[in-house]
Amino acid sequence: MKAKDKITIICPIKRFANEWADSIRKQVPEFEVQIYPDDSDRESVEFVMAFDPQPGAFAHFPNLKVVASMGAGVRAILTEPGLPENVTVTKIVQPMHQRDMADFVLALTLSHLRKLPVFFKQQQEKVWKHHSFQRPEETTAGIMGIGAIGRVIGELFVKNGFKVTGWSRTEKKIAGIQTFYGNDQRNEFLSTAQVLVCILPLTDETTGILNKEVFAHLPKGAYLINVARGGHLVEKDLLESLESGQLSGAALDVFSEEPLPAGHPFWAHEKIFITPHNAGNTHPEAAFKKVLQNYYALKNGGEFVDVVDRKRGY
Amino acid sequence: MKAKDKITIICPIKRFANEWADSIRKQVPEFEVQIYPDDSDRESVEFVMAFDPQPGAFAHFPNLKVVASMGAGVRAILTEPGLPENVTVTKIVQPMHQRDMADFVLALTLSHLRKLPVFFKQQQEKVWKHHSFQRPEETTAGIMGIGAIGRVIGELFVKNGFKVTGWSRTEKKIAGIQTFYGNDQRNEFLSTAQVLVCILPLTDETTGILNKEVFAHLPKGAYLINVARGGHLVEKDLLESLESGQLSGAALDVFSEEPLPAGHPFWAHEKIFITPHNAGNTHPEAAFKKVLQNYYALKNGGEFVDVVDRKRGY
Repeated sequence: MKAKDKITIICPIKRFANEWADSIRKQVPEFEVQIYPDDSDRESVEFVMAFDPQPGAFAHFPNLKVVASMGAGVRAILTEPGLPENVTVTKIVQPMHQRDMADFVLALTLSHLRKLPVFFKQQQEKVWKHHSFQRPEETTAGIMGIGAIGRVIGELFVKNGFKVTGWSRTEKKIAGIQTFYGNDQRNEFLSTAQVLVCILPLTDETTGILNKEVFAHLPKGAYLINVARGGHLVEKDLLESLESGQLSGAALDVFSEEPLPAGHPFWAHEKIFITPHNAGNTHPEAAFKKVLQNYYALKNGGEFVDVVDRKRGY
Repeated sequence: MKAKDKITIICPIKRFANEWADSIRKQVPEFEVQIYPDDSDRESVEFVMAFDPQPGAFAHFPNLKVVASMGAGVRAILTEPGLPENVTVTKIVQPMHQRDMADFVLALTLSHLRKLPVFFKQQQEKVWKHHSFQRPEETTAGIMGIGAIGRVIGELFVKNGFKVTGWSRTEKKIAGIQTFYGNDQRNEFLSTAQVLVCILPLTDETTGILNKEVFAHLPKGAYLINVARGGHLVEKDLLESLESGQLSGAALDVFSEEPLPAGHPFWAHEKIFITPHNAGNTHPEAAFKKVLQNYYALKNGGEFVDVVDRKRGY
């Protein structure tokens, strides 16, 4: 008898785990889908899907071969000590997700330029007061991490009349975007960014990169948008740079602890706009096709797609 | 001795009148600039600039030949009983103003789709809660009044992936936009508009056009954006349609009385987002060039530009 096809999900965020499980069951009804830790027969499992896995979870799967991330970010998977070195990690690369991220960053940026948050507060206080505004053509958006998603953001901004710069680890050439790369060109890049959009992968090198030394190189009054990971930001440095006026404000979609704890000073900060990690959702319906492709590549032999370079970290 | 060049400004909004006066003095220092009613020698005046003029103001100028509007909307000038029939009225047609309007409507629409107002309120209540969202590709924006400004809005929306429809009095053909025209096609147009953007000129025919009969033809849960004039909207019909759920919300930049009175029910309505007539400002620096061209056309003989069809009303 042939072994039944099976996918085990390792993800402590129940809403997200269930959404994926439901979608997989709908798409491949013949598959068994189990959610850790309520799963069984771990010795037989070679292929799991994971996001922000429970500490030590991977160590329970002695024959693990592939971890398919359920999101674009893979830091929590790669830094899990129980992950054997020979395991292949794949990530989600999804045009719809990239476009959702870009739309969200554009929404935040236009909202900032046209002072919608100011008008929200004015309405609550029944205040009628005009404000001047800055135009896209007068604004340079600097994309920190101009990789797969960053490029889509940058190109959407170009289309909307912004000046766009980008920075990445290795050299990139993108029409309409002035690109910088490596540590040598970092400060030059920063000096252009009136709106700084962080969409870097979280790695050892980028952890804490949004700090006061970096903010000091931005044009005075720059606006920060972080849609990458909370680990990129040094929170107390943000508060200091907002206080000094070096930054005029920040929109944060990600936090070092999520949900953001109730007592956190960001909640009530009038220059910080908080969204609950809502910039882009990966879409199980669309994303599972490539996961399945990797599942069969493992089973029948073949090339994996969207593989993470574990040394590089993304 | 040659008569001194002179422009008289008729506009009760002091901020706006002074902004224009300052700009004119800077651009043509040899001109005399006066602001009604603190002006003199009205018999000699043939050329005035005006916006929302004081009732009866024009009647004080027996030799008036040209009224140059300081804004895109000219309804208040045309409906002023003291305006003689033979006077030429010109309007502001300005690419930068059109683009500002379009950026603002896009900001409001993306903010609505990505639920930024919901997140603002959640932040005030320290609530961390995800929300699903609608994509531009899944959204049809209907431009009610696809004229000079409406076209720029529509084209920006097309660029951002929206489906776009447009409606106008006379037939228009615009690449990428499905257009409708006249009363016969109005309801068909309305049935497409998940986001209805009103940018019509205010005329006898369009006064009160945003009413519950019109709202009833929109898809259930449509969102209304009015950046035209307050006179387009029947306010109680909006409240009813929000109450019934026929409309999911509205962003209003213009009102029948501005500033919006303190006791007005719109201020505290949780489905209405209020901005203080801030969608686009005409820019005296850029706009005055054509005004001056018309001034010299009057003085030396020549063709006027951006002339209003007084019968049509825009």
